[in-house]
Amino acid sequence: MRVLGVDPGLTRCGIGVVEAGGGRSVGFVAVGVARSGPDEPLERRLLAVADEVERWVERHRPDVVAVERVFSQHNVRTVMGTAQASGVVALVAARAGLPVAFHTPSEVKAAVTGEGRAGKAQVTAMVTKVLGLDAPPRPADAADALALAICHCWRSPMIDRMAAAQARAEELAATHRARLEQARRDAGGDRPSAAEQWAAARAGAQARSAGGWGAVGGARPRFR
Amino acid sequence: MRVLGVDPGLTRCGIGVVEAGGGRSVGFVAVGVARSGPDEPLERRLLAVADEVERWVERHRPDVVAVERVFSQHNVRTVMGTAQASGVVALVAARAGLPVAFHTPSEVKAAVTGEGRAGKAQVTAMVTKVLGLDAPPRPADAADALALAICHCWRSPMIDRMAAAQARAEELAATHRARLEQARRDAGGDRPSAAEQWAAARAGAQARSAGGWGAVGGARPRFR
Repeated sequence: MRVLGVDPGLTRCGIGVVEAGGGRSVGFVAVGVARSGPDEPLERRLLAVADEVERWVERHRPDVVAVERVFSQHNVRTVMGTAQASGVVALVAARAGLPVAFHTPSEVKAAVTGEGRAGKAQVTAMVTKVLGLDAPPRPADAADALALAICHCWRSPMIDRMAAAQARAEELAATHRARLEQARRDAGGDRPSAAEQWAAARAGAQARSAGGWGAVGGARPRFR
Repeated sequence: MRVLGVDPGLTRCGIGVVEAGGGRSVGFVAVGVARSGPDEPLERRLLAVADEVERWVERHRPDVVAVERVFSQHNVRTVMGTAQASGVVALVAARAGLPVAFHTPSEVKAAVTGEGRAGKAQVTAMVTKVLGLDAPPRPADAADALALAICHCWRSPMIDRMAAAQARAEELAATHRARLEQARRDAGGDRPSAAEQWAAARAGAQARSAGGWGAVGGARPRFR
């Protein structure tokens, strides 16, 4: 699985590509930064970012694009530009028919360093080590893009297992509900018995709790 | 001047087109809403919005796209999706070679109703009246998109005048500085006199104050 990670931004947008091997082995493919001038109109800046990411997608043909999930607790002015940049990156991926995975900064830090509050230097050091690079990738946005791609390689099997478990639980619950319905019809009654109502409620609760578990970390469990 | 106004959003993205006539006359061209399902992956939703806006741009050939400037003081979850949608709308405009103008909600309300804190109903009523429509445009997102387009028609001449004034002031200041420089060289001295320094500082301050005035309302003064 080849992953293109993007740390969205207008002034500097980090882009990194890695290839997942067996287990936790991840190979380095490429890293770079898309830039746009702060004095350019916003739409031209977004175009510069979109065009560059499009070139990377064409050149490296990833299977999935991993993008940092933007939060608004940071600087209000900056975060809007970052959100807009992440929107155009997701659009470029969708136009190329690629799925997009969003990971929060703390998910990335936790996946790469084992610590959700790790600092920039720690993340860069782990990225350098994991990918066996001779020197740390510069600037920090480039290292962050690689960290995102690594995070996706390591998180997606877990997300897949959760999705599979959720699908199984939903299937079980549906079968259960169908059987109860059938039993009710066979008994000729219009209203379910107290035992049937309890069993149906239990099946529903199981499906819901599996759903809640599958959604841990806010990730959408739909990647292979 | 034909203006395509967009009230960005993922669930409902309002799109409206108007044609500016002489003075404050504005003609209605078209209005609609792009929609995407809340259960779809984010990148597919952004794609749906981008594709629809692209179709509108191709069909109605606007001269400029006016988009609501998104602030983060609202619901954090919603605002990120709205910012991402506004990003892809700006990208679609840029790809079509069109300039994008951002107007804040209060600039739109002030332009259309004369009151920056006007309610939805008031804005819709004014849009209906200004465009001479038989019935108010529905849903509110559609009315908001038309309000944005009308706002742009009425604000852009003012923004242009400000930009022209700023350009003139900068030109004057540059001429002034060049003359002082020449005078200094003619006098054969390496260092400017106190009077020359004062005059240069004054020319700079004039240019800066004109710049500040041109930037009133946070708009980028670059529309014709």
